[in-house]
Amino acid sequence: MSKTIAILAPGAMGSAVARCLSENGARVLTSLKGRSEATLKRAAVSGMIGAEDDAIADADIILSIVPPGEAEALAQRLAALIVKRNKKPVVVDCNAVNVDTVKRIEEIIGSAQAPFVDGGIIGFPPQPGGKSPAFYMSGAHARDIAVLRDFGLDIRIVEGPVGAASALKMSYAGIVKGLAGIGSAMVVAATKAGAADALRDELALSQPAILARLEVALPDMIPKAYRWIAEMHEISGFLGPDHPASQIYEGFAKWFEHLAADAGGDAVDASLLKAFAAGIAKKKV
Amino acid sequence: MSKTIAILAPGAMGSAVARCLSENGARVLTSLKGRSEATLKRAAVSGMIGAEDDAIADADIILSIVPPGEAEALAQRLAALIVKRNKKPVVVDCNAVNVDTVKRIEEIIGSAQAPFVDGGIIGFPPQPGGKSPAFYMSGAHARDIAVLRDFGLDIRIVEGPVGAASALKMSYAGIVKGLAGIGSAMVVAATKAGAADALRDELALSQPAILARLEVALPDMIPKAYRWIAEMHEISGFLGPDHPASQIYEGFAKWFEHLAADAGGDAVDASLLKAFAAGIAKKKV
Repeated sequence: MSKTIAILAPGAMGSAVARCLSENGARVLTSLKGRSEATLKRAAVSGMIGAEDDAIADADIILSIVPPGEAEALAQRLAALIVKRNKKPVVVDCNAVNVDTVKRIEEIIGSAQAPFVDGGIIGFPPQPGGKSPAFYMSGAHARDIAVLRDFGLDIRIVEGPVGAASALKMSYAGIVKGLAGIGSAMVVAATKAGAADALRDELALSQPAILARLEVALPDMIPKAYRWIAEMHEISGFLGPDHPASQIYEGFAKWFEHLAADAGGDAVDASLLKAFAAGIAKKKV
Repeated sequence: MSKTIAILAPGAMGSAVARCLSENGARVLTSLKGRSEATLKRAAVSGMIGAEDDAIADADIILSIVPPGEAEALAQRLAALIVKRNKKPVVVDCNAVNVDTVKRIEEIIGSAQAPFVDGGIIGFPPQPGGKSPAFYMSGAHARDIAVLRDFGLDIRIVEGPVGAASALKMSYAGIVKGLAGIGSAMVVAATKAGAADALRDELALSQPAILARLEVALPDMIPKAYRWIAEMHEISGFLGPDHPASQIYEGFAKWFEHLAADAGGDAVDASLLKAFAAGIAKKKV
């Protein structure tokens, strides 16, 4: 059965998902009004069709894939389009937002009488011929979009209400990205104190799995640190402002802000992290 | 060659180290003035000999093994004893203190003209017949205490000045205990949001080494959280007050304070953590 799926916006993840869907026979719409030349090109390569708002509102499924800070505004824009239509699309928020935010988005989409699904993406954007990241879905309508499996996406149902998929995404990212955060902070500090080699040796002996993870995670993190700032604020919000652990994630936001500025500047810390990951810490006797 | 080693104080780690040394033929002194009945008993079982301050100052080596907040005061007490003696013991600070603190302690011991070594212990207290934790040692006099290998301790020299061994201890603890901190915060939050099973399943699939580590680290952490509060403040101090990552470790101190209070009270979070580690998260449909 042919399906029309709208994806907003055509960013790195959104266009990679679009490519997977269109290569598997789906019709994929997006909104290209006012977008840059680079985005238009990326959308075209991914098989996305530029469409007016009415056509997007007529899609079978709308996937919201945007930076966390933009998720709520996009939901409002979608609700305004959908409220006027008779046939309602299933709207899926796939963003790294916290449970409170996704519940507000559920209300916004509900005000347009459209079915809503809470989604969370874990993993890298799908590559041509490669594997799909995990699309976790929760809420009463989660099974309505299991059809996306026919178009190459790894859809996994989380038993639970709207919020459960976002809680999974938040807690998973809080562990995996948090480990990159503490690992990078400690590796930079140890290197500056002349203890990088000893740290590497001790981890290799007593915590080889953590060392192996850091060797992958530290270089991978550097170009993404700027995107993780908002996600760390979302995780802090997931815990709640008075939660005894929320300060940890506000701290990560500040640290990733520093690493993003470093990566965009002298890359002093970035080069220490790459050297540690590659096992070439400088001996300091 | 017989050696006289003084260990202050006879706490859990100190007395376990004493037992290892005395079982291997060393004479181990400690100060028992004003200590509790339980401490006197633990010291006796560990083969420690209660001694006056002058006898302690006459030891070949003095190991300082105390909670981080007490390390500097003990150094001052030792310096006052040692400054009057002709023969100077080698003083080793084995505590989880930051680089600035250990440099201040070096000055204090130096004011008594005694050789000083920066030490850091990584691992569990030595068990009878079991293996020794790693005793990392740095500074110009580090090799003076390599003799402790003959008495069963795993002494490892870190090439570098006073501060290098403490930097290693801080950065290693910052990663390993930090992982327990983020893991526990996220597991508690995911469980309360009904996403614990999904989190466990996704970690098992995509990050099995992290899951395996959390299964060990979370239950192990609960009875120790109260001790980790001060250590997290030390790690924050290791980074420095204006460092962009120091807030992360202040946040961990706050979180471990919560977990310690929880463990000493209703143990609500402690039981969620144990259930997750044991793989018996409750299904919430």
